[in-house]
Amino acid sequence: MISSSLLKANPNLYVFLPLFYMVWEDAVLTPSEIKKIREIIDLQDWLTGEERSFLLEQINPSAPPTSDELKAWLTEIQKVRNQLSLDAKDSLVDIGVKLVSLHSPTATVSSATRQSLAHIEDALGIISHEATFLFHPEERKTITSQFGTQRTFDVDALNKILDGRQSSIIKKVKTIISDPEFKYIETDNLSEYREKVLQWCKQLAAQGLGSLAFPKEYGGGGDMEGYFSTMETLSYHDLSLVIKFGVQFGLFGMSVYFLGTERHHKKYLKSIGSLELPGCFAMTETGHGSNVKGILTTAIYDPQKKSFVIHTPSPEARKEYIGNAAVHGQMATVFAKMIVDGKDYGVSAFVVPLRDKSGKTLPGITIKDCGRKMGLNGVDNGVIYFDQVTIPSENLLNRYADVTDEGKFTSPISSDNRRFFTMLGTLVGGRIGIPRAGLSAVKSGLTIAIRYGDQRKQFGPEGGSEVSILNYRTHQRRLMPLLANAYALHFALQYLTSRFLNRKEDEMQEIEALAAGLKSFSTWNTTQTLQECRECCGGKGYLSENRIDRLKNDTDIFTTFEGDNTVLMQLVAKSRLTEFKQEFANMNLFGAINYVTEQAATSLTEKNPFTIRNTSEEHLLDPEFQLHAFRYRERDILVSAAKRLKRHISEGMDSFDAFNVAQHHLVNVGFAYVERVILEKFIEQVEQTKDAGCKTVLKKLCDLFALSQIDKNKGWYLEQDYMEGVKTKAIRKLMNQLCWDVRQEAVPLVDAFKIPESCLAAPIATRD
Amino acid sequence: MISSSLLKANPNLYVFLPLFYMVWEDAVLTPSEIKKIREIIDLQDWLTGEERSFLLEQINPSAPPTSDELKAWLTEIQKVRNQLSLDAKDSLVDIGVKLVSLHSPTATVSSATRQSLAHIEDALGIISHEATFLFHPEERKTITSQFGTQRTFDVDALNKILDGRQSSIIKKVKTIISDPEFKYIETDNLSEYREKVLQWCKQLAAQGLGSLAFPKEYGGGGDMEGYFSTMETLSYHDLSLVIKFGVQFGLFGMSVYFLGTERHHKKYLKSIGSLELPGCFAMTETGHGSNVKGILTTAIYDPQKKSFVIHTPSPEARKEYIGNAAVHGQMATVFAKMIVDGKDYGVSAFVVPLRDKSGKTLPGITIKDCGRKMGLNGVDNGVIYFDQVTIPSENLLNRYADVTDEGKFTSPISSDNRRFFTMLGTLVGGRIGIPRAGLSAVKSGLTIAIRYGDQRKQFGPEGGSEVSILNYRTHQRRLMPLLANAYALHFALQYLTSRFLNRKEDEMQEIEALAAGLKSFSTWNTTQTLQECRECCGGKGYLSENRIDRLKNDTDIFTTFEGDNTVLMQLVAKSRLTEFKQEFANMNLFGAINYVTEQAATSLTEKNPFTIRNTSEEHLLDPEFQLHAFRYRERDILVSAAKRLKRHISEGMDSFDAFNVAQHHLVNVGFAYVERVILEKFIEQVEQTKDAGCKTVLKKLCDLFALSQIDKNKGWYLEQDYMEGVKTKAIRKLMNQLCWDVRQEAVPLVDAFKIPESCLAAPIATRD
Repeated sequence: MISSSLLKANPNLYVFLPLFYMVWEDAVLTPSEIKKIREIIDLQDWLTGEERSFLLEQINPSAPPTSDELKAWLTEIQKVRNQLSLDAKDSLVDIGVKLVSLHSPTATVSSATRQSLAHIEDALGIISHEATFLFHPEERKTITSQFGTQRTFDVDALNKILDGRQSSIIKKVKTIISDPEFKYIETDNLSEYREKVLQWCKQLAAQGLGSLAFPKEYGGGGDMEGYFSTMETLSYHDLSLVIKFGVQFGLFGMSVYFLGTERHHKKYLKSIGSLELPGCFAMTETGHGSNVKGILTTAIYDPQKKSFVIHTPSPEARKEYIGNAAVHGQMATVFAKMIVDGKDYGVSAFVVPLRDKSGKTLPGITIKDCGRKMGLNGVDNGVIYFDQVTIPSENLLNRYADVTDEGKFTSPISSDNRRFFTMLGTLVGGRIGIPRAGLSAVKSGLTIAIRYGDQRKQFGPEGGSEVSILNYRTHQRRLMPLLANAYALHFALQYLTSRFLNRKEDEMQEIEALAAGLKSFSTWNTTQTLQECRECCGGKGYLSENRIDRLKNDTDIFTTFEGDNTVLMQLVAKSRLTEFKQEFANMNLFGAINYVTEQAATSLTEKNPFTIRNTSEEHLLDPEFQLHAFRYRERDILVSAAKRLKRHISEGMDSFDAFNVAQHHLVNVGFAYVERVILEKFIEQVEQTKDAGCKTVLKKLCDLFALSQIDKNKGWYLEQDYMEGVKTKAIRKLMNQLCWDVRQEAVPLVDAFKIPESCLAAPIATRD
Repeated sequence: MISSSLLKANPNLYVFLPLFYMVWEDAVLTPSEIKKIREIIDLQDWLTGEERSFLLEQINPSAPPTSDELKAWLTEIQKVRNQLSLDAKDSLVDIGVKLVSLHSPTATVSSATRQSLAHIEDALGIISHEATFLFHPEERKTITSQFGTQRTFDVDALNKILDGRQSSIIKKVKTIISDPEFKYIETDNLSEYREKVLQWCKQLAAQGLGSLAFPKEYGGGGDMEGYFSTMETLSYHDLSLVIKFGVQFGLFGMSVYFLGTERHHKKYLKSIGSLELPGCFAMTETGHGSNVKGILTTAIYDPQKKSFVIHTPSPEARKEYIGNAAVHGQMATVFAKMIVDGKDYGVSAFVVPLRDKSGKTLPGITIKDCGRKMGLNGVDNGVIYFDQVTIPSENLLNRYADVTDEGKFTSPISSDNRRFFTMLGTLVGGRIGIPRAGLSAVKSGLTIAIRYGDQRKQFGPEGGSEVSILNYRTHQRRLMPLLANAYALHFALQYLTSRFLNRKEDEMQEIEALAAGLKSFSTWNTTQTLQECRECCGGKGYLSENRIDRLKNDTDIFTTFEGDNTVLMQLVAKSRLTEFKQEFANMNLFGAINYVTEQAATSLTEKNPFTIRNTSEEHLLDPEFQLHAFRYRERDILVSAAKRLKRHISEGMDSFDAFNVAQHHLVNVGFAYVERVILEKFIEQVEQTKDAGCKTVLKKLCDLFALSQIDKNKGWYLEQDYMEGVKTKAIRKLMNQLCWDVRQEAVPLVDAFKIPESCLAAPIATRD
């Protein structure tokens, strides 16, 4: 076009050039759009016939300009900025007019022409005020591309709040796992990996960490709280190490401690704590995982020899997935049906030797390696079979069940059922350690993904500089609520730990439900968070060097072990139906249901016509509103589940079927309860935080947690008319705003976890 | 109790025994409940004072019976069934009365006594009609425990519907991958694994499968449809094999085929198809993944030598994650900025030799191994650097861009931008192969999890037989909608494939959007499904022997490669904003937005006050209702996104910022579109199915797909007042019922995939 003599003759024709450039460079015109342009050109009575056909020829789809011509057009248009001034808001017509004046200082473009050309811009839907970016993209400054990390609080102060009075043990453990001895090993070989993990455990034991929770009189540290903090901190390192550590000192050690009596403590605790005696916790069987009560391994009492015979009667009764069993374990706490004098007294626990000091399997014991797993391959899980293995009667862990010298069964708890659940209750610590370990993995994953998202740039305004992917709203929506969850769960799990440490007998039902619920919520959150972290890091997240695969695969089983999450959530629901007053018993559940439904009848209806439409930010960020919403949901779901069960059972449905019909509802009862507890504890934490910077950022995270949970459950709130659509929309909008705000603090917020850099180890998470 | 002489003296006391047993065996009584029992005992004026205190002593919490006493009570009560008859609905009192009559045929329990004891049952909330199960649990038959697999359709007939006219190639591939040569290898060693996968690929090539899609004149099969079916079927085997296969014959081969011209076809296609020439597809760079347009590798034309110099100017410009690069690739299609005569003409593609026949890297080429990844470790991904590598100009894949003998750039497409997107458009096949591969992995996962869930029993009515875990409603809710999704996606991806195979120029915008949308929806569904399968198989799902870990880890990257899902969904949205009329261009997006919003103003409001409350099953299962709901959502979300963008941009917000603010909304535009397409195609499939049994079961799956999607989006429907709470609740109820119904057919439904047993290989999925 620009080489045409017509342009020289009539420089006014230049006014079309920016428009034509746009047409060819950026868009594919539809026939109706081409028609529109043609019509407007036809209307220009200042054009000669020749000029008109020349112009029309420029937008003929079957005769496009060559690439070089197009580039020449651009060069021509760019002269405007180089030789004249360009206003940032200039439209294509404005630029065209300036171009005309460049070629002929005296030429003027009539306002009629300007207007009709502006019509074309309108008709094509061109964003006029962005026209200049097509020619001079470097001038474009957007909010999105200028956004970034800011620090408004003291990272050390926030770290202190997180670590609290456990900071010294946390520091100690961090120092140990940052030692070169704890450098990750890269090996494809299972044996090598397992040996390394065992060595690490021994080094931790040598530092006194293995026996930290055991009583001082048996060489322990008498510090149960410190033990949990140790587990949590170790979880910044290899998760196989944590699980191996937990199997030995937690499951094996604690079962001896809590289910055994002085004779066992004296005999075993010291060598367990020092890892001289590596052991297992053999509860799960091939045929019975969640339903432990149904295990089939037998422990038959022999009154003559004053011994028990441990036996695996069928393949279904094999002890399966047992950590430490495949290679290292020398002893196991074995759960078996205790049979005395021909009578079955239900499940009890026994310590059974598996291997001698040299690692040779003892007679009657057969152990099969579980082989490679999705993760945790540094732990040697195995399957154990017992073939009439005789153990002395003192190997019975006899705190809750014993045999007298006369060969009589004795127990402080007459019901086998209740004895079993009481025994399980003492082992609730595992349901605290696991979610805390999972939360550390979440913190590692978020640290990697957030640091990467802050540094990684991709796309940007046309021609402008590229943008941190963490500035994209979808990226924020994926990660920021999960960052809020991580903080929320940190405080909730601290609360659970402190309830467990200060437990009283009559609080056990509640603490068990709290542990079951938080374990489920937290570990599902772990799986979800690490999945998002993987995806948010794209291909880099798929490379093993960045460790997200390990974090993900190692923790994936957390939703299954220490109690399958779905099963646990139903336990929580059943416990809620009895309002923690008692163990949930099948026969009298009707009583519980009646109680809950009667309570509901007397409580006031809590909905308020103003509130359901209140969309003010002040209201939505008010802890009172948030708590009310969570509590209302918790109560209403519980009551409706109770009513539903009552109706079904009254109508003659078998209670087992009734519970099945309501199963999904019951899982929601569990969720609603746990979510309310988490929010309460987070709000309390915000309130008691003194440091102003920390308080502000924690309040934002707490709001984000509250609103994202409400948004997740908005279908329910709308169904119940607790909120109207205007309100759920306002909540979504505010949640997006909070994501945007928190993104600024996201890097310092993950820095506040203070995960040792050698543990993070991901090249993409390296600090700038 | 039963040894007391008081009982002998007054056998009427036996009436209390079942109640007392229940108290001790099953429940922990609260103080108020104990008080209630005491009160009622006190009321019994037929008791002597001694008898009364004896009875009260039996329920003293501080003096429980011994375990043996409790067992003796049970034995005593069980005499009733052994010696008298027991009615299934007998209450505790009824059983007590029968027990009395056993001890004293003449004794009668007064109706006043019966009534007041019945009061206790009431007060404790005992489910009277289940009382007998406490003593004779084996008699309990529940709906849940008696439920199971049924076959109402012909598995072969359904398999024929799935495979359609591709059945012969599918059978051929299944036969090959079932051959002992294709036995999975167990190795921790990367090199060994990679070599094995290469050997497998060579064996497939030898069968003519590698060149299936290439034109017959170059030794190919001329069967693009068969190529996709091959990819899909291979995906029942090792996913590394599929990706290696796809890199060689799909990405590398198709780029030469679609971007090259005859000279390249003649020279390379045959040796690519036979795998004599292993190659790579080098597009992604370290700094530019999703934003390919921003790649930095240069290809500078040298007019003297008539050659191009390929160069990596910075670490960010390295080609990363390139499959086949680390070890085997001898050549690569390299995407680079083509610079001719100092001018940058944007991205073009070149074939660049990497290694000689012996595998030695050529001068100027540096390749780094990406090392271990989360999955797909049988594929040798690498990082490639080019240091001024000279290639002859005929190595330019010159379908869309060329250099004349005079050294001039030439192209049928003048805009660099549009040329780039046109080139990418030809490669859309990858976005068909990947979701189809992911769907096969889903089918494998579901087959494993559903067969296991059918066989695996856990828990059950108290004392009764254990129940298939697939009979539990939560388990059904986890797996059945995903089974419906798998079928829905099968038909949708078939539709996409056929659209692609029969594409016309002016349909490309729509087909690209369809591919992008279905790729995203499907691969996210793959990740979600395999996660559920893992969790639903519990510990067994964590063992590598059951293959879910592999399926999960190998497919996890599917949401990232061939286009990051979140980015793709935004492309879909932008394409929807232009109603597929044109490529989405940034400058004139306002036109698209205007068009959409104007269209909306003229369309009628489609809500209907009767429909929003209609909860009848007939209505909810009516395809017309389902489609209306999906279409309404699709249209409404699109229009509201357009309006929102228009408002922001009109108010002067930079369009880049406006798109960012609406980003989450735009992703939903993509989802709503894809979901509607999937439903439409599923409904069409049901309608055209002739076999009655298959039609019925497909209709159920289609309904389950439709209702579970509506349930997933219920928050939106409620917010928009498209449905009221009564309706969303009715949908949930019906969805649960459909899950229950489909569970019966679940095993035959996965059997209909006919996955070779040797490929499934999971011990837990072995047929009975």
